[in-house]
Amino acid sequence: MKRAALLFFSFLPFLVSAQDDSADLRRIRDEIMLRGSCYEDLRVLTKTIGHRLSGSPQAEQAVQWAAATLKNAGADSVWLQPVWVPKWIRGNEKLEIRLPGEKKFQTFRMLSLGNSVGSGKKPVEAQIVMVDDMDHFNKLQRKDVEGKIVFFNYRFRQDLISTFDGYGDAVKYRWMPPGAVASKGGVAVIIRSVSTGLDDAPHTGMTRYYDTLSKIPAVAIGNLGADRLEAACRTNGATARILTSGTMKDSVLSYNVIGELKGSDLPHEYLVVGGHLDSWDVGEGAHDDGAGCVQSIEVIRTFKSLKIRPRRSVRAVMYMNEENGAKGGRAYADSARSKNEKHVFALESDAGGFSPRGIGLEMTATQKATVRSWMPYFSMLNVYDFDHEEGGVDIGPLSKLGVPLAGLLPDPQRYFDYHHTEQDVFEAVNHRELKLGAAAMATLIYLVAQNGL
Amino acid sequence: MKRAALLFFSFLPFLVSAQDDSADLRRIRDEIMLRGSCYEDLRVLTKTIGHRLSGSPQAEQAVQWAAATLKNAGADSVWLQPVWVPKWIRGNEKLEIRLPGEKKFQTFRMLSLGNSVGSGKKPVEAQIVMVDDMDHFNKLQRKDVEGKIVFFNYRFRQDLISTFDGYGDAVKYRWMPPGAVASKGGVAVIIRSVSTGLDDAPHTGMTRYYDTLSKIPAVAIGNLGADRLEAACRTNGATARILTSGTMKDSVLSYNVIGELKGSDLPHEYLVVGGHLDSWDVGEGAHDDGAGCVQSIEVIRTFKSLKIRPRRSVRAVMYMNEENGAKGGRAYADSARSKNEKHVFALESDAGGFSPRGIGLEMTATQKATVRSWMPYFSMLNVYDFDHEEGGVDIGPLSKLGVPLAGLLPDPQRYFDYHHTEQDVFEAVNHRELKLGAAAMATLIYLVAQNGL
Repeated sequence: MKRAALLFFSFLPFLVSAQDDSADLRRIRDEIMLRGSCYEDLRVLTKTIGHRLSGSPQAEQAVQWAAATLKNAGADSVWLQPVWVPKWIRGNEKLEIRLPGEKKFQTFRMLSLGNSVGSGKKPVEAQIVMVDDMDHFNKLQRKDVEGKIVFFNYRFRQDLISTFDGYGDAVKYRWMPPGAVASKGGVAVIIRSVSTGLDDAPHTGMTRYYDTLSKIPAVAIGNLGADRLEAACRTNGATARILTSGTMKDSVLSYNVIGELKGSDLPHEYLVVGGHLDSWDVGEGAHDDGAGCVQSIEVIRTFKSLKIRPRRSVRAVMYMNEENGAKGGRAYADSARSKNEKHVFALESDAGGFSPRGIGLEMTATQKATVRSWMPYFSMLNVYDFDHEEGGVDIGPLSKLGVPLAGLLPDPQRYFDYHHTEQDVFEAVNHRELKLGAAAMATLIYLVAQNGL
Repeated sequence: MKRAALLFFSFLPFLVSAQDDSADLRRIRDEIMLRGSCYEDLRVLTKTIGHRLSGSPQAEQAVQWAAATLKNAGADSVWLQPVWVPKWIRGNEKLEIRLPGEKKFQTFRMLSLGNSVGSGKKPVEAQIVMVDDMDHFNKLQRKDVEGKIVFFNYRFRQDLISTFDGYGDAVKYRWMPPGAVASKGGVAVIIRSVSTGLDDAPHTGMTRYYDTLSKIPAVAIGNLGADRLEAACRTNGATARILTSGTMKDSVLSYNVIGELKGSDLPHEYLVVGGHLDSWDVGEGAHDDGAGCVQSIEVIRTFKSLKIRPRRSVRAVMYMNEENGAKGGRAYADSARSKNEKHVFALESDAGGFSPRGIGLEMTATQKATVRSWMPYFSMLNVYDFDHEEGGVDIGPLSKLGVPLAGLLPDPQRYFDYHHTEQDVFEAVNHRELKLGAAAMATLIYLVAQNGL
């Protein structure tokens, strides 16, 4: 009898807390699915501002939009956190290729890779050497490459079920070619886009230069263009004429945008939920990462409108400059460190506004076990997968302060059809998928804010 | 020592079998993700034939297409199975509404519900009575309804996380209104579409009449139109003018299309994998259910091209007339019964070509346990959910013969934005999501064909 009573009493707080959580979590989920504003917020961000590369006028409009939208969502306080960001301007660009046996050059759809240098006023014109992959390139002699344009024809591995695994495998062909080719005297780079798309859309994204090597133009073509160029190169070779105008200006001042709900019991313990506000300079940055921004705002709005005051403080953070510098994430962590703010958790959404499948966890085994004990709350949202080690680029710097990190894992099948292209637009986002992701995020933020980790 | 040896030998067959399965399943998955033809097959079906309601010329073209595509995929034999199907023709239709305080009628986007009768050459014109749901309607007196057009303004429940739960809740408002309204002397029905869409697309789908009641026209309007009409009805009422021309012709002869791979060891044990070939007479029937057809053909093609000869016979079945009669599913089961064919398993894909999340199981507990023992093969495909009791409309009649059933469960968030609308087109299907669904289907068919259930 005594033992039973003891058990009863020791379970009681858990039961009460679990019941409270459960009722609140149901309200949170219903609020987002029935009255969520994230989809309409995304419409405004993408359709009235559009793409917003760091340092651009649109990025500054996005800062103002984010601050206003966070205030409107009911954040207790909203502020801008200064971040110096690179300012790269694409300018005019054109890729023309003369296929073997033809006299005329034909224009290929292309995008300069991010941070690419310009060709100068005259285009770079040279023969194309095609390589299948880095091993193939490494076998080439300097004489094979010198004065040539190298076409890296590496294909995104569609056999890998997670496209993020395919991206991890292929993205070095966006980073490495300019250095590799310059080191053997090549004059420019064309890459097959890092893309799952069965189309001709070129995908931009940051490339890399080395101060010790000459900087040469680097451009991406779509998969269909790459198929045509591959066929040409397999027979007799082709000649390209590449005009690019990319220029890197002096750094400019921009901002992370932060909105905070003050915690009731432990206001000096902070949780972060965030996405990045900047995007590439094409399309509308809808999945990458307007989605993560509006979902993070949704968390604040939902708590506020349901009058749920979290025990710990919750900050929605819209980071600036994830795409070509990741300065915002570092600025936030630097500020947290210098102010000695106690951050207990950070969650990022930067893998698209698709149907949520899981939550990646980058934290201690004990903390993972705590999160996994909440899995029943997530299975109601059809979110099952808690097996991946995954945080995010912008919250990454917080891990050095010992902060446990998590990343929303949406269904990954469509992301790299849209990623860094003209096609990453509002219409590519589904309202229910976006909201369900926000509901999963709000669920996790609520559980950590109330119960700790 | 003896015990260890015994264990070793008793595990051996399992290990060998598991290893073989594992290698084959990897090849199957790679074949589909890298060289799968289902997406291109879907392009041909949707873009060269388009929608294909039972009894239409396009449905007959689809029969020919399916037979040719199954032959091309390498089926050992392909045949047509006769099915008598209803032939409903939509004809001209128009919905005009005069909102309160306005003189002119304005045209609303609409679709007659499937099998709806025509209004006659002159439109039906009457005042609109709006009801929120069936309870509300049931409280109305005959005098409230007589001579009126009743607008059923029931909303799809967006708070339910599975849209199929929402559909199950709302679809009675597509079936029940004509009978209910006719029984109180009403003259026509307008329904808010059974739709998750935040748009104005009307969704068709079959409605129901009773021989004892007069048959009145029934039409659906999109969510935005329904919002406008709701606002009008909340103030002062509105008048509608409904022209419909739906006519039900005599039944016509059509076909299920069947392609078979003969089993090596147990050729007289049959597995079925299928989808339905017919669609509603709008859009292109891409998700509903072109996807299920091309995925089923993919299973045959993949086995054949990998020279995997299943131990039991595998039939891909494209059913005719799921949408407005379900005659094909019954015809197939009737034939199986009359020929005394031993069917050991049937799998259906009729929930869209989206990223697969799970497999519904409608079978004995022992059979479920067997399927669940294969879950590791599915987790590689990111398919986790084996908790739902779910087969499908077309394979349903086989359950009376004791056949264990399964249904592919794709991510459900987007389906009811497209379902039975002009928007269910090829472009709404993602190539990787479609193929991944086919890979999950091929995995399950392989495992049952080789190991039984």
